[in-house]
Amino acid sequence: MMVVMAKKSLPLAQVYRLLEPGPVVLVTTTRNARPNIMTMSWHMMIDFEPPIVGCVISNRDYTFNTLKSTRECAINIPTVELAAKVVGCGNTTGRSIDKFRRFHLTALPASRIDPPLVGECYANLECKVVDSSMAAKYNLFILEVVKAWIDRAHKHPRTLHHLGRGYFMVAGKTIKLPSKMK
Amino acid sequence: MMVVMAKKSLPLAQVYRLLEPGPVVLVTTTRNARPNIMTMSWHMMIDFEPPIVGCVISNRDYTFNTLKSTRECAINIPTVELAAKVVGCGNTTGRSIDKFRRFHLTALPASRIDPPLVGECYANLECKVVDSSMAAKYNLFILEVVKAWIDRAHKHPRTLHHLGRGYFMVAGKTIKLPSKMK
Repeated sequence: MMVVMAKKSLPLAQVYRLLEPGPVVLVTTTRNARPNIMTMSWHMMIDFEPPIVGCVISNRDYTFNTLKSTRECAINIPTVELAAKVVGCGNTTGRSIDKFRRFHLTALPASRIDPPLVGECYANLECKVVDSSMAAKYNLFILEVVKAWIDRAHKHPRTLHHLGRGYFMVAGKTIKLPSKMK
Repeated sequence: MMVVMAKKSLPLAQVYRLLEPGPVVLVTTTRNARPNIMTMSWHMMIDFEPPIVGCVISNRDYTFNTLKSTRECAINIPTVELAAKVVGCGNTTGRSIDKFRRFHLTALPASRIDPPLVGECYANLECKVVDSSMAAKYNLFILEVVKAWIDRAHKHPRTLHHLGRGYFMVAGKTIKLPSKMK
């Protein structure tokens, strides 16, 4: 897959529109100069601006301690073309393999954080951990998105939505209703 | 819309498969014997079994204080046929109207909680608040799902996924990949 850096800065006030529909995401972290990727679905918006995101990462995952100590990650949003790599990242551990190399994914430098962005994803959110006080009890981290990037060529990104046991719903059509909701 | 009570009990260990894909949900509560409905998208799974769910409800919403004091709600999952009612519930407040009546939705009795279930939704999760200690800082409630119901006729429920400003992604096709992920 060719990586074209066509990404533009996305205003932070728009970030909720990417995460609120509930896509599977790839979380990148860096530990001892070695980047890693994990697949995650347990996330939600907590506030609009600055965009605050809650996410749950099992304390059995390699990423848990990395995130707890380094306090930085990127949330990368893949589309259906990356489905096999998304499952691959979810079925392996960064303890023993380099997932960027194994799954032929491109690590691009971020602007505000140390962990790299996944070039093949249509959107990338650079995040800092602002509260890890619920990590011990709930594996829950509170993140602030400090910079966001998007490939505007994806008007209707065909994101993946995990249904469990290897099943994914692929984003379908978009509808619009008159609404006062943000 | 005719309400046929074809719903069956869903094992609690399966609940994550309904919420993890990120659907818009209708949250029902009861305050002073008066049931209410709000539209919500900011939720995530926190644990599999018992199913623990995190959700963010603005302290400007009527539901916030109701949930804080009564500590019970149902999470009802609508499909695209209910889109106009979902937006209607999101654009009105239970302070001044009876949303069940206004939007012609059917309040069915729950088994383990006081708030009613929305009959027209394909799945209903009866929940108790198990932790509201983060409500003051983050509007975050921790819920335990104590009983779950599903209409098995919906093999591929066309759920709604909020993109902001009245736009919704409608659940598309389902794909399956070999995976060890739960």
